[in-house]
Amino acid sequence: MAEQIEFDQAHQALQEVSEALENGRFVHVRRQLQDMEPEDIAHLLEASPRKSRDVLWQLTDPEDYGEILDELNEDVKDALVSKMEPEVLAEATEGMDTDDVAYVLRSLPDDVSREVLSQMDISDRLRVETALSYPEDSAGGLMNTDVITIRGDVDVDVVLRYLRIKGELPEATDALYVINEDSQLIGQLPITTLITTQPDVKVSDVMADADEAIEVTMSDSDIASLFERRNWVSAPVINEHQHLVGRITIDDVVDVIREDAEHSMMSMAGMDDDEDTFAPVFKSARKRSIWLGANVLAALAAASVSNMFEATLEQMAAIAVLMTIVPSMGGVAGNQTVALVIRGLALGHIGDANKRELLAKEAAIGLVNGIMWALIIGGIVVAWKGNWMLGGIISAAMLTNLLVAGIAGVTIPILLKKMKIDPALAGGMALTTVTDVIGLSVFLGLATFMI
Amino acid sequence: MAEQIEFDQAHQALQEVSEALENGRFVHVRRQLQDMEPEDIAHLLEASPRKSRDVLWQLTDPEDYGEILDELNEDVKDALVSKMEPEVLAEATEGMDTDDVAYVLRSLPDDVSREVLSQMDISDRLRVETALSYPEDSAGGLMNTDVITIRGDVDVDVVLRYLRIKGELPEATDALYVINEDSQLIGQLPITTLITTQPDVKVSDVMADADEAIEVTMSDSDIASLFERRNWVSAPVINEHQHLVGRITIDDVVDVIREDAEHSMMSMAGMDDDEDTFAPVFKSARKRSIWLGANVLAALAAASVSNMFEATLEQMAAIAVLMTIVPSMGGVAGNQTVALVIRGLALGHIGDANKRELLAKEAAIGLVNGIMWALIIGGIVVAWKGNWMLGGIISAAMLTNLLVAGIAGVTIPILLKKMKIDPALAGGMALTTVTDVIGLSVFLGLATFMI
Repeated sequence: MAEQIEFDQAHQALQEVSEALENGRFVHVRRQLQDMEPEDIAHLLEASPRKSRDVLWQLTDPEDYGEILDELNEDVKDALVSKMEPEVLAEATEGMDTDDVAYVLRSLPDDVSREVLSQMDISDRLRVETALSYPEDSAGGLMNTDVITIRGDVDVDVVLRYLRIKGELPEATDALYVINEDSQLIGQLPITTLITTQPDVKVSDVMADADEAIEVTMSDSDIASLFERRNWVSAPVINEHQHLVGRITIDDVVDVIREDAEHSMMSMAGMDDDEDTFAPVFKSARKRSIWLGANVLAALAAASVSNMFEATLEQMAAIAVLMTIVPSMGGVAGNQTVALVIRGLALGHIGDANKRELLAKEAAIGLVNGIMWALIIGGIVVAWKGNWMLGGIISAAMLTNLLVAGIAGVTIPILLKKMKIDPALAGGMALTTVTDVIGLSVFLGLATFMI
Repeated sequence: MAEQIEFDQAHQALQEVSEALENGRFVHVRRQLQDMEPEDIAHLLEASPRKSRDVLWQLTDPEDYGEILDELNEDVKDALVSKMEPEVLAEATEGMDTDDVAYVLRSLPDDVSREVLSQMDISDRLRVETALSYPEDSAGGLMNTDVITIRGDVDVDVVLRYLRIKGELPEATDALYVINEDSQLIGQLPITTLITTQPDVKVSDVMADADEAIEVTMSDSDIASLFERRNWVSAPVINEHQHLVGRITIDDVVDVIREDAEHSMMSMAGMDDDEDTFAPVFKSARKRSIWLGANVLAALAAASVSNMFEATLEQMAAIAVLMTIVPSMGGVAGNQTVALVIRGLALGHIGDANKRELLAKEAAIGLVNGIMWALIIGGIVVAWKGNWMLGGIISAAMLTNLLVAGIAGVTIPILLKKMKIDPALAGGMALTTVTDVIGLSVFLGLATFMI
């Protein structure tokens, strides 16, 4: 009878384990950990404060280390690995995918990673060294080398017998790769074709084309888009000579998709997307300070603008009271556009062919919302301060700033991307600086001129 | 010989097609569309301005409509479907997955969707009606009903012969489901096991447990977490009587992951994540206005605070010039924390067991960064305005506000989640309101008191 998976299990385990740890019931925790799947232990580690994390790691069966490391997020993985002995680490790599071993080794000091490599057996070492020779965020860095290859001139029956002798297939195997005598990829035999074809048919007669292979240099984001669009489960990787060099599976691609999406979200808030939820205070403070430093410049730019109008501010304090409203609305409206454009750029929806349409559309939205909010806020100000002039000034500034926000919201991310600066990281801050400066200048400038 | 996939193809196609459309070369475009895969046409449609989109849709072979609709984002899909005749739509559904047909029908007026249903053949209609009976964001709404079931008491050989007669397997089939005489799921036979097992072995002797089945009521986000952690390619769905009712595949789960991630990113900027890049101006303006309206309240709250200190502002314009700096830094620092907490909540890393540690850690980061930026900005203000008192006031306000930002950044999203309000949507705005109000109050309050 099928049991349901209780999704709250993980939370419960976290609660139980942390209580047991607090009470020093280590034997109990060790027993609980033995009953858990590696991926659930990984989740538990990520959700644990740093101190309990180290204790938990000590209580975990070292045989599971490899599979757990496979599943951990980068910051947490780095922290645990940095405390492991090279021999233990070398042993752990036996349970890990090639790409993940390469990832771990990249994050270690050179001498430690050389030591770990020297402890691995030859065939594993060669695989890992191959992976290390490609950039981490390319197909070469993402692929595994556990491919099953067959020849095209054999019968389906022969393939089936060969697989029965092999006895086990690598995870997420949905196709066998057909190569020629030069190890070049010439086709794929989907497993589903294999089992629905009569035994006496030749592989080359039923195999699919090899035109869906991934170049070993392709970037991981492009690979993710391809998998998403084609609904692939796995895909072969070839080098510039069409030699089959590995295979990428959907589980690694899902990680890339998740990481890319997290990257956008976290960058937009000025956060490093690797930041562990329980990172050490000083490390986090230092990382986040960079962004606060950028914001100091933006805030000082805005203050310099108001400073130019000190005389006006002195004359009428109501202007100082109201001057934050226009920049605030411009920042919110502009960031809406920035978010839309960043998503569009990431999905490949925005290019030279349509950016003018997009600009026109966002400017029009800025105008529509500008008119609406100019009227509403102008009205509020007239009612509040009983000053028609002030209402008119804030309305004009609001309209101008929302129009500017729409235009800047499209152009800033596109320009940043052209300049090879990540628009998710710098877009929001640049936009806010523009809308702050323009919003304040127009509002205070008009006020100075009119009053 | 394997050809490489050119990732820029899509962009090139977009450029070419839009040029051809502009020049009215429709025959050329129609020919190009015929050479493209449905998923690439979907991408092209999403990247096209609305006017060209309708023309492209007319030029597309109606035979591909179903598969293209399968791949389109929701806003674009809705727009195209709303213009299709029920008969054309009924025909298109033949090429679509059950869950996607159900999605499309949900977005149509009741009478149209009834009309479409009546045009479908009986077995398709029954499947779609089943899917319609479950919530859209549950396993029932996400699953397909194209499962292959076998009995446990037959030999592997019999299964292989059965599959050869069937001739074709549903997409992403990586396991056959073993059921008993009551249609209850009792096990799974992974395809890889099937082909590596000797022909005379009984299915029940090699099948895997059925304990990894998904309850039909499970939410799509929980399903996505499970797939991600277990590295599944597909999973069976069962109802409360353990009856097998369908199957969820990784490609649909990838869409959920992408949508959830986009949702967080877009919501944080106050955007509807369904908003099509080329949505109509008035529709977008209306949707975005809701958020701008919320921000008006936040901005007015801040203005009311400054209004209470009008006398102080009147006395010293430098205070008005400097008063935006403290709220701005608090907003940025607080939103860093909010982003971290939203991600942690989404990944299930934050719960009752560890929220106190998190609060302590973020408060500590607020304190560390608060001290640092208090000193730096205090120094800048002393140098700029030559006023030690003003430097001291802004330092004290900065320190307080960054500490508040850290604490509010943790508590606000957690509280919102408890209140069943999406923290990604409301967290940033609520945080900014708090840091604006506290930042202004402390800075202006101290200034009033001291000067």
